[in-house]
Amino acid sequence: MTSDQPVSAATRIRVSKTGKPGTVEDYVVGEEPLEIRVESSEPARQLAITMRTPGHDIELGAGFLWSEGLLRSREDLIGITTCKDKTLTLREQENVIVARVRDEAPAIERTMDRRFTMSSACGVCGSTQIDDLRHRGCGNVVPTLFTDEQLALLPDQMRPKQKVFDKTGGLHAAGLFDPAGNLVVVREDVGRHNAVDKIVGYALMHDLLPLTGYALAISGRGGYEIIQKAVSAGIGAVVAVSAPTSLAVETAREFGLTLLGFARNGSATKYSPAQ
Amino acid sequence: MTSDQPVSAATRIRVSKTGKPGTVEDYVVGEEPLEIRVESSEPARQLAITMRTPGHDIELGAGFLWSEGLLRSREDLIGITTCKDKTLTLREQENVIVARVRDEAPAIERTMDRRFTMSSACGVCGSTQIDDLRHRGCGNVVPTLFTDEQLALLPDQMRPKQKVFDKTGGLHAAGLFDPAGNLVVVREDVGRHNAVDKIVGYALMHDLLPLTGYALAISGRGGYEIIQKAVSAGIGAVVAVSAPTSLAVETAREFGLTLLGFARNGSATKYSPAQ
Repeated sequence: MTSDQPVSAATRIRVSKTGKPGTVEDYVVGEEPLEIRVESSEPARQLAITMRTPGHDIELGAGFLWSEGLLRSREDLIGITTCKDKTLTLREQENVIVARVRDEAPAIERTMDRRFTMSSACGVCGSTQIDDLRHRGCGNVVPTLFTDEQLALLPDQMRPKQKVFDKTGGLHAAGLFDPAGNLVVVREDVGRHNAVDKIVGYALMHDLLPLTGYALAISGRGGYEIIQKAVSAGIGAVVAVSAPTSLAVETAREFGLTLLGFARNGSATKYSPAQ
Repeated sequence: MTSDQPVSAATRIRVSKTGKPGTVEDYVVGEEPLEIRVESSEPARQLAITMRTPGHDIELGAGFLWSEGLLRSREDLIGITTCKDKTLTLREQENVIVARVRDEAPAIERTMDRRFTMSSACGVCGSTQIDDLRHRGCGNVVPTLFTDEQLALLPDQMRPKQKVFDKTGGLHAAGLFDPAGNLVVVREDVGRHNAVDKIVGYALMHDLLPLTGYALAISGRGGYEIIQKAVSAGIGAVVAVSAPTSLAVETAREFGLTLLGFARNGSATKYSPAQ
């Protein structure tokens, strides 16, 4: 865990257990900042920094760009790589990715944005955020052919693929299921939004967007950000192991996305569409 | 859940259960954006927007300012209120707080910061973030007098106070214990970092900083941000119900903070200090 070591999804450390003498080896889930830079005909600029579990960082960067509405189409993303700057340490290089985008991509405007300067009358609320999603061009999603009973089983089908969780007991997972019910890909991260961005990035890099007919399973709670990312990717159904939030439900209902929560042992609670 | 209704910590909605006919009433945890503005002799500017569970927003704003290093002292914060702008809807007003700070407070510089413009050689990694915390003026924390066995029991003592969790099953909690082991305050939020900011804000508003000898219990995982906020408040020990991350352990060890994880039924794993 010194600065010249490579970053990794799980790190082995020495710990002790209360009430027991001595120490044992244990794994903790990796967490490092990832800096996302964008460049066009202009030099690279910083777009965002997110705390994430190392691994599938290219997908994470691509998915972040897509789900934040910073690409108009697949073609806006010309390429995306890890940082090759040899003046950085190995650990630093692995924590920077650079996306090359068209000059017209919204990502470029975002890096120039003086978003800290604002008029005092500009209010925020959940419905404003939903409106923003509409204005970005997100339309209603297409309902999937999954039954509620099939959806309720998806988290259990994802569970055997949560490899870093098995080692560390400490991170979120998201799993993408195709319209036939096959598990396509599972991604893990300390941040649940990152796990979903990695899924969206995977879909972008494999030319699967929009994910019409697909369903997404997530290991934890379902907040607004998860639903927003699912809507941006055209996913028709989201199943969470734990509880959704008020704004997640509101957004799912608004965009016609099926949302189930507390999916355990084949049963679940259905929050959207409204009954 | 329309835009003219007040925001709340839990919202009642109608849901269905898989395999059962009809619908039932259920609560979901509230989630809304909170915009934090700062003003000095200059007009108010936006500092940050965070998704949070409504409630204790003043504490959240004050705690955010403190734990991000945006106040040099208690005196930098002149006052903090909810937004009174009558041109906004009720829902919007409740989602904006305004902090009045001294002109010299780092918060003002932050709102002016052109942080999107950067040199390409500026790398990020976990150890950089730890260095930044040092340079901000955070010193090592003072060890508490709690035994490991006492710490391992703290999450169970917090549990009966997690009122919104009881209703919704869907959010994080943080609890502050004084040096004598008394539970001082519990705060809940969909974002675990917000729950800790509410605690730090409570301490700031009650002139309890630095929290020497205090311990913090958190309901979920212990990531870097939690440890960083605890260090900024001078908390000596953090106990998480679930797993910590690699960078959380690294930061805790660096600042002499005692860190326990997987605290359940009175036993726990000790990650920091290094054994």
